[in-house]
This record gives sequence, C-alpha cells and structure tokens, in this order.
Amino acid sequence: MFLRACWLFALLLLLPKTAIAADASKPKPLTMADVLAASQAADWQGLDPENTLYLELGSGRVVIEMAPNFAPLHVANVKALVREHYYDGLAIVRAQDNYVVQWADPNAEKPALARKILHAKRTLPPEFDLSLDAKLPFTRLPDGDVYAPEVGFSGDFPVARDPKSGRMWLIHCYGMVGAGRDAPADSGGGTELYVVTGHAPRHLDRNVTLLGRVLQGIELLSALPRGTGALGFYEKPEQRVPIKAIRVAADVPLTERSDLQVLRTDTALFRDLIESRRNRREDWFKFQAGRIEICNVPIPVRARR
Amino acid sequence: MFLRACWLFALLLLLPKTAIAADASKPKPLTMADVLAASQAADWQGLDPENTLYLELGSGRVVIEMAPNFAPLHVANVKALVREHYYDGLAIVRAQDNYVVQWADPNAEKPALARKILHAKRTLPPEFDLSLDAKLPFTRLPDGDVYAPEVGFSGDFPVARDPKSGRMWLIHCYGMVGAGRDAPADSGGGTELYVVTGHAPRHLDRNVTLLGRVLQGIELLSALPRGTGALGFYEKPEQRVPIKAIRVAADVPLTERSDLQVLRTDTALFRDLIESRRNRREDWFKFQAGRIEICNVPIPVRARR
Repeated sequence: MFLRACWLFALLLLLPKTAIAADASKPKPLTMADVLAASQAADWQGLDPENTLYLELGSGRVVIEMAPNFAPLHVANVKALVREHYYDGLAIVRAQDNYVVQWADPNAEKPALARKILHAKRTLPPEFDLSLDAKLPFTRLPDGDVYAPEVGFSGDFPVARDPKSGRMWLIHCYGMVGAGRDAPADSGGGTELYVVTGHAPRHLDRNVTLLGRVLQGIELLSALPRGTGALGFYEKPEQRVPIKAIRVAADVPLTERSDLQVLRTDTALFRDLIESRRNRREDWFKFQAGRIEICNVPIPVRARR
Repeated sequence: MFLRACWLFALLLLLPKTAIAADASKPKPLTMADVLAASQAADWQGLDPENTLYLELGSGRVVIEMAPNFAPLHVANVKALVREHYYDGLAIVRAQDNYVVQWADPNAEKPALARKILHAKRTLPPEFDLSLDAKLPFTRLPDGDVYAPEVGFSGDFPVARDPKSGRMWLIHCYGMVGAGRDAPADSGGGTELYVVTGHAPRHLDRNVTLLGRVLQGIELLSALPRGTGALGFYEKPEQRVPIKAIRVAADVPLTERSDLQVLRTDTALFRDLIESRRNRREDWFKFQAGRIEICNVPIPVRARR
C-alpha cells in the first residue's frame, strides 16, 4: 500500500556499470529505462570544465553547465566574475514560488558596502537570441510549441527557432540559468543570476539572457524557503543563503570535481528517448499522450565514477 | 542595485480596499496590475465551504479547492475520509523535485498498523475525463496547446477539451491536486493525494483523477526538502511531515476559516487579464510573447478580509 502510488519514473542517474548491449532480436526499447539501459558510452558526453560552474552552498554543490554558444559574452563575464571571486560571500536573496531563485550582492545598493568589480564588466549587451546562421546542432521535437515555430535541443539546451526571422534562442525551462537585469536591455551582465524553479516562464524568453542550466543539485535551490517580500525577496538578512563560492570546474582540483556525463541529444538513442516520453509504455499508463512539450523532456545526467 | 532585478510581476493578493472604478476615458488596462485594480466585487467569487479543504500542517494551512464538477465521486470520498479523520496524523511521505508532493498512510503496507477506513471507500472508478455534454462553462485560450485540441478555464480550473471525442479533462498545472493510484485505473480513491509542484507533467493528464487545486499555502509543500529515495520518497520516518488534520471548511468555525476569493474566469475582466499576460506591457519587457500557455495563466486569489 505504501508503494501503491510509486507510479512515476525514476530518473536513472546510476546505470549498471556493465552497459547492456542492445539486442537486435528484441523489439526496440520503449520505456526511458529501456532506452538508458541500452545506451553506449558514445551516447554520453562529459562536461567542458571551462564551461562548468560549481555554486558552493553550505548545503552542498550546484553544478551548472554554461552555454557559450548562446551567450558568449555573458559566459565569459561570469567566468571573469568567478575568477575575481566576485560572488564568494554574496547570497541567495530571493526565492519566489513557482518561478525563480536568485543570488546577488545584498549590499548592491549601498555604495560603501557593495562588492567591487575588479576586471569583469558590470553590464553587457543583451544576448537574448542569435542567428540561425550560427548553424548550431538542433534535434527538433515533433509536436510543436505554444510560443515558438520550432523547438528542440542544441547540445543539452532547450532551444526555440523561428525560420522566418532567422533567429534562435534558449528556452526558460525548469533549471535554466539567466542573468537578471534592470529595465534597460543592456543592464544585465551576470552579477545577479537566477535559476528557474517553477513552471517554464516562457514569457521571459528573449527578454533575458539565458546562459546555462543546472545539471545537479537544483534541489538545494528549489527547496529553499520562499521569501515573503515582493517577488520572493527575503525580508530579513538572516534569511539569505550565503554563497561560499562559485568556481569554474577547470580551476578545481580533479579530485574535487563533479565528474558528470550528459546524454547526447544528436543520437538515434535520444530520438528513442523522446519517443519513450511521448508514448509512455510503463504499465501504469492507461493513456498515451502521443506528444511532448519541450520542457517535459528530461536530459539524463549521470556520474561517470 | 539590490532591486535592479525586481523585474517580475508580484501577484497582487491584497488589492486596495476601495476598488478603483474603471474609467471609460482611459485606455484599456494592459498590465495585470491594471486589470486587477479595475476589478469590481462581481469579478470575484468566494469559495464553497463544502468543497474547500484545509490541510493543516505544523507550518500552517494549505487551502485546496475541490472540483466536484470534474470528479464527483472522488470529491465525495475525500470529504468522507476527512470526516472520519482518516488523514489526521498521517504524513507527507514524498517530495520529488520538479514533480509532486504526496501524502499517505506511512503504514499502509503494514496491515496491523495501517489506518482503517470506516465508511468511505478505498477505491473508486477513475474520473479521468468527462463528457462535453456536461456543458460546463469554458473560457478558451486563443493560442493552442501541445497536448490538447482546446484549452481554457472552467471555473478556476485549467481544462482541456477534444471536440472530436466529445471529452474534457482537468490539466496537471502547478498546484493541481490528484488521487494517487496503483497500476489498475480503478485503484485510486483519494486515500493518497498529490500536489503538482513542478513544470506541468501533462503526460499524467487522463491517467490520474485530478480533483482540486491549491489556492493558498502551496509554498508549505513546494519548499519541503526533497526525499532522497526513489521517486522522492522520504527514506527515514522522521523526515516525513506530519499532517495535523485535513478538514472540510464547512466543518470549521467561521472565525477559523480562510476567507478567500478567486477571480472569476467567465468575465470580460478575465479576458483582459489573459491579454495582459499574452502581451506583457510592464516596462521591463522588451519582447511580447503574444501568446500564452494554459499553465502560465495565474488565477488571482485574495483574502476577503
């Protein structure tokens, strides 16, 4: 009885150490567990340590993969901020339910106390979208989207495309990381970063520069107490969650790195995974949706070791 | 600087006590704040205390509006379970990130210890969808949906419709409440309830009986520590969150009730609200989505007192 409601998939982070070879005599794998069990080493890829961030909290580490293809200026600036220790000792100042968690300098508005920027930039031109001429890889989903003409994945990032305007942009799915800004479009730059922790706020697409996504540890952010001030800001300083440090993985000793792999999205196996999510073959399901929305496609992550 | 990222809307739970009359000489209100400021008493409706639940936790009260039009058997059975105190002293046993929080009898699989049902039913026929012949009110959204031919609101519940099959069903948006079940479709009944606390898991639509939605206090559920067991179940008994009681509002003294009002969805004002969310006129926005997805439409709730 206790487990009678165990009817939802478990994301298989740790696969059997011996990969199960796909057996050509068997029917094509249909559940996501089947798909992942049939995956080979080449279906996974490691992270680029130069484009991986570790947000170190008292409760543990949040691993963020950055998206230099989509936001090169912001990614470079966030790395510059990290390397001058801009974020170390700042805090999570906001947790708005079904929306975002955000960190910043709590003293940003007090010139005498505000954290100084040494070499990085405070603001940057927006990187809300980019040209399709960039010819980035794209695995398109078949079922459409309310907000964009085409959606799919480029690497392991959710992406929208508009062939008519010739533009593409990252999508505000759960776990995506963006650079907060003021009213002017060019007032952001990465000194304040937010993570989507609710239903995809797609109205933010093309209004903020997205620059990465959380691969591991999002529960350290999403389960934070909600702030009771406007927009989920914490009202009392002691409610803020201190940031011990943010580090670029490349700057961290090998033995201290989170050695993760992400499922590739440009493979036949990933197309099988999409199908396994469009039509759920687990016994529990009585009705097959036959469709899937971009932010409901999980991109599996596993520890290499 | 601290507030530079205050670029997201604050849901106006508490409007000025004096309603601001709409001024015909002014242009049509365009932000959601404008729309709500122009609302009249008739744009709001109170809750039916016979179809309102209070989930009482140590941290406070979660208010749930039930949907008897969509799941009459389940709503009646949950009320029967409440009135025989079935849930009192049970616990939240599961919190799965970006998915659901669920409560149940932790001893359900131990016959000697399991909570007994006195008069209510343990299981019910599924109420996954219903006929369009029910002629329930429906305010349709204009921008389509990935999963269903038509989506909109019936009362303050998100609803999908398929004119071809003649069926309609509730949608798994953030905050919706459903009845967990085992593999058989008729194995649920309300003894275990879950609340959606992540991106809308639309593949569950028509696979589980939805019976209500959280109107207030969802942060008491959504910010709970995630369970570390499979599917987000808490692994240690002491991690579970005790349920002090669940009560039907009608059984609670008037002075102890949460006197809430919900914005009506069958009004011209609500259509203005939809438009204010399709095209965000707040200064911060540089790009208007021009579209909205069903689970991104907020249904405002306010305290009457």
